[in-house]
Amino acid sequence: MSANLQLDSQGRLVHLLTTEGLPRSLILHILDTAAQFVSVNEREVKKVPLLRGKSIFNVFFENSTRTRTTFEIAAKRLSADVINLNIGSSSTAKGETLLDTVWNLQAMDADMFVVRHAEAGAPHLIARHVKPGVHVVNAGDGRHAHPTQGLLDMYTIRHYKQDFSRLVVAIVGDVLHSRVARSQIHALTTLGVPEVRVVGPKTLLPKDVERLGVRVFHDVAAGLRDCDVVITLRLQNERMSGPLLPSAGEFNKTYGLTPEKLALAKPDAIVMHPGPINRGVEIDSGVADGTHSVIMPQVTFGIAVRMAVMAILAGNDR
Amino acid sequence: MSANLQLDSQGRLVHLLTTEGLPRSLILHILDTAAQFVSVNEREVKKVPLLRGKSIFNVFFENSTRTRTTFEIAAKRLSADVINLNIGSSSTAKGETLLDTVWNLQAMDADMFVVRHAEAGAPHLIARHVKPGVHVVNAGDGRHAHPTQGLLDMYTIRHYKQDFSRLVVAIVGDVLHSRVARSQIHALTTLGVPEVRVVGPKTLLPKDVERLGVRVFHDVAAGLRDCDVVITLRLQNERMSGPLLPSAGEFNKTYGLTPEKLALAKPDAIVMHPGPINRGVEIDSGVADGTHSVIMPQVTFGIAVRMAVMAILAGNDR
Amino acid sequence: MSANLQLDSQGRLVHLLTTEGLPRSLILHILDTAAQFVSVNEREVKKVPLLRGKSIFNVFFENSTRTRTTFEIAAKRLSADVINLNIGSSSTAKGETLLDTVWNLQAMDADMFVVRHAEAGAPHLIARHVKPGVHVVNAGDGRHAHPTQGLLDMYTIRHYKQDFSRLVVAIVGDVLHSRVARSQIHALTTLGVPEVRVVGPKTLLPKDVERLGVRVFHDVAAGLRDCDVVITLRLQNERMSGPLLPSAGEFNKTYGLTPEKLALAKPDAIVMHPGPINRGVEIDSGVADGTHSVIMPQVTFGIAVRMAVMAILAGNDR
Repeated sequence: MSANLQLDSQGRLVHLLTTEGLPRSLILHILDTAAQFVSVNEREVKKVPLLRGKSIFNVFFENSTRTRTTFEIAAKRLSADVINLNIGSSSTAKGETLLDTVWNLQAMDADMFVVRHAEAGAPHLIARHVKPGVHVVNAGDGRHAHPTQGLLDMYTIRHYKQDFSRLVVAIVGDVLHSRVARSQIHALTTLGVPEVRVVGPKTLLPKDVERLGVRVFHDVAAGLRDCDVVITLRLQNERMSGPLLPSAGEFNKTYGLTPEKLALAKPDAIVMHPGPINRGVEIDSGVADGTHSVIMPQVTFGIAVRMAVMAILAGNDR
Repeated sequence: MSANLQLDSQGRLVHLLTTEGLPRSLILHILDTAAQFVSVNEREVKKVPLLRGKSIFNVFFENSTRTRTTFEIAAKRLSADVINLNIGSSSTAKGETLLDTVWNLQAMDADMFVVRHAEAGAPHLIARHVKPGVHVVNAGDGRHAHPTQGLLDMYTIRHYKQDFSRLVVAIVGDVLHSRVARSQIHALTTLGVPEVRVVGPKTLLPKDVERLGVRVFHDVAAGLRDCDVVITLRLQNERMSGPLLPSAGEFNKTYGLTPEKLALAKPDAIVMHPGPINRGVEIDSGVADGTHSVIMPQVTFGIAVRMAVMAILAGNDR
Repeated sequence: MSANLQLDSQGRLVHLLTTEGLPRSLILHILDTAAQFVSVNEREVKKVPLLRGKSIFNVFFENSTRTRTTFEIAAKRLSADVINLNIGSSSTAKGETLLDTVWNLQAMDADMFVVRHAEAGAPHLIARHVKPGVHVVNAGDGRHAHPTQGLLDMYTIRHYKQDFSRLVVAIVGDVLHSRVARSQIHALTTLGVPEVRVVGPKTLLPKDVERLGVRVFHDVAAGLRDCDVVITLRLQNERMSGPLLPSAGEFNKTYGLTPEKLALAKPDAIVMHPGPINRGVEIDSGVADGTHSVIMPQVTFGIAVRMAVMAILAGNDR
């Protein structure tokens, strides 16, 4: 259903809601387009006129300065007009429904909505109700999906490892609460990564996670052994509750990525993290700032991937 | 006085503070100019260079993401540089007076202030103290006026009904607390609408409202009968207090616009609302989303009207 | 150390962190460049393409709408893309460190950071850790420095008095808590002002302030006598505490600048204030709005000085 919603009858991308069901060719098209924008961002004048005269609304029902900033800078480098809306403090407080808010903005001749929402499925709901020619980009919905993060991670892996077809990728930590992990897993399996592992305590892995096509490891040493890519996840303290969950200190001891644990992976392994990192919790500073870390390049590629997604969506109007 | 303040000695618009006393020819000039911007907003590149290099400050002493957004997008489509200031959390908290704040911004070579303030008259006060060539647009002051809303409503009525001279227009609900209603009434009577009605309980109508040239109805059936235009007003829960006022539920029962009540109006009547709507309070979803509703076109025309006002003001410098 | 950090090996400005140690020739170069931007800001189209395609991040760890606005408008008039970040409410709340925040933004291909922080030295820390080609502008750090304010004050003094070499300048009030005063003193002494005075009660002057090359006056009449320039400082109520400090009322009586006290200065003395003013505390309205006051021109020149600093920094990449 999601897949159908984000593609038109000719299979072109009209919304980006999830990496689940996104065709391999489309993912690769996004990555190839992003490669061009990486070079734009290295220029002295980091600006192309592709979205000139377009109105892009960053509609954040859940606050995230960091993610909002990445979309804002991406849109501005495409020459779009960008409007930021923190809706938490706005009309919804006046009793306006989600769809009324969106319909109002759409009536202002919006071209694109970048939506973050605490409820899973909110961007899909919006996508089902906007007019043709208006595009929705999911910037994170509940525990469900964060597709631009998933895609920038694919860009990063391809940049360093070239070929997906022989990789072992381990995703370590709080998979249960992570929309990022879901978006990564769908993209990795679609791109043909033969072994995707999730590594963590039972209490932080979703039940039946194997159904997504991953191998489950509770033992971190086994999970990291001979990996090409180690993805650490943010320990979402603010989303965690309940007596069965480990404390930050306990988590670090067992699953936090230290240089010692990383030594179990392949010598040329790369270490990724969606940020912001909790130093000394899910990742030690020695790893985060070390030679295996590609956390900062992830951020750089993230701008280019978001530019690519927006440019492709806008281009598919014509 | 207000009329003089907003016109220069040649009768040209230099501030937009209220629709009261605004000459008919000027209102029509704004509507005609807005028509051109409606077509700009339907283009692929929704942008004209009219205000390039101008600095427009959205100075909101009362928070309103929604209204601020309409002015921001309008100004950006005119290619202006826009600065948003939520002053509630800023210098006034440091003890700076209203005029000191404005003088400071003026000294930054501001060209235009879009002002919202909880106190009636604040935009007038500012207009009286800015330099020649600096323009003030009232984006809502207390219960007093919201002229761009009034003007976009006139645009909408003209779009659907062409001729003002044979219309019956009913404004239903909380007229007492509504700056929108005041701005509508002044514009409607200036444009020659022969019958403007206000419909609501005594406790929600201003005393002596007849002096504005309207007919008063407490009976909703009589008030709606044979109307061409039904304007519902937001029930401003946040501004209401006191034991004489109806609850939202009571209000809905008596004055809320349902399909049944709407059937009393003319078969081709249009339904308007300044937004955001309270579904099930002043308007039922069956009406808000029904075929008579022009609430979304109001929003679309609102951007064009705000572009027109800003373009006319800036053009009157030369 | 600071001086070395803000200059490259060829003595060109790469960061602006403090006026302390800034060479006289560089200060004059900034003032001369600003003069050109003053005329840009008087044009109908207040815009030059110097920073087109550059990404400037206003990173405010301490809220200041006013100062942020001056940098935002300056950057927009240079055609830069500007991103505003109020970090207080963002990632630092999620446990991200200052440097992680900056490194993340840097990875988005930032060109310049404008930084305000409650801790003295934060902009220096950032400047030490950014990549070559990324520039840091201190927009106020703790009680330490506010160099663009200091420089715009120098611009203002030069505008009205032309020659620094024969001036008597008095800085009156809460020097202890004032980063502005520190930045002024360093700039004034570097520019060769023969007599810089600080005037205030012992409790509001730093110990050993004479070491900065100033004369200390506790008696306001003696301090103001025959001055060419009187700089009043904001009484930073929010930073003051302790039983030894005067109340606002007591302060006004003794040190508040009244027309009577100002009469002790030279007949053509100018009165300055960094804003926002506390009317009736450190300055009376009769002085603030009087013929000696150049407080509004300070604001106007401030935009031009900030444009000059940004343009010089960006130009020094090439």
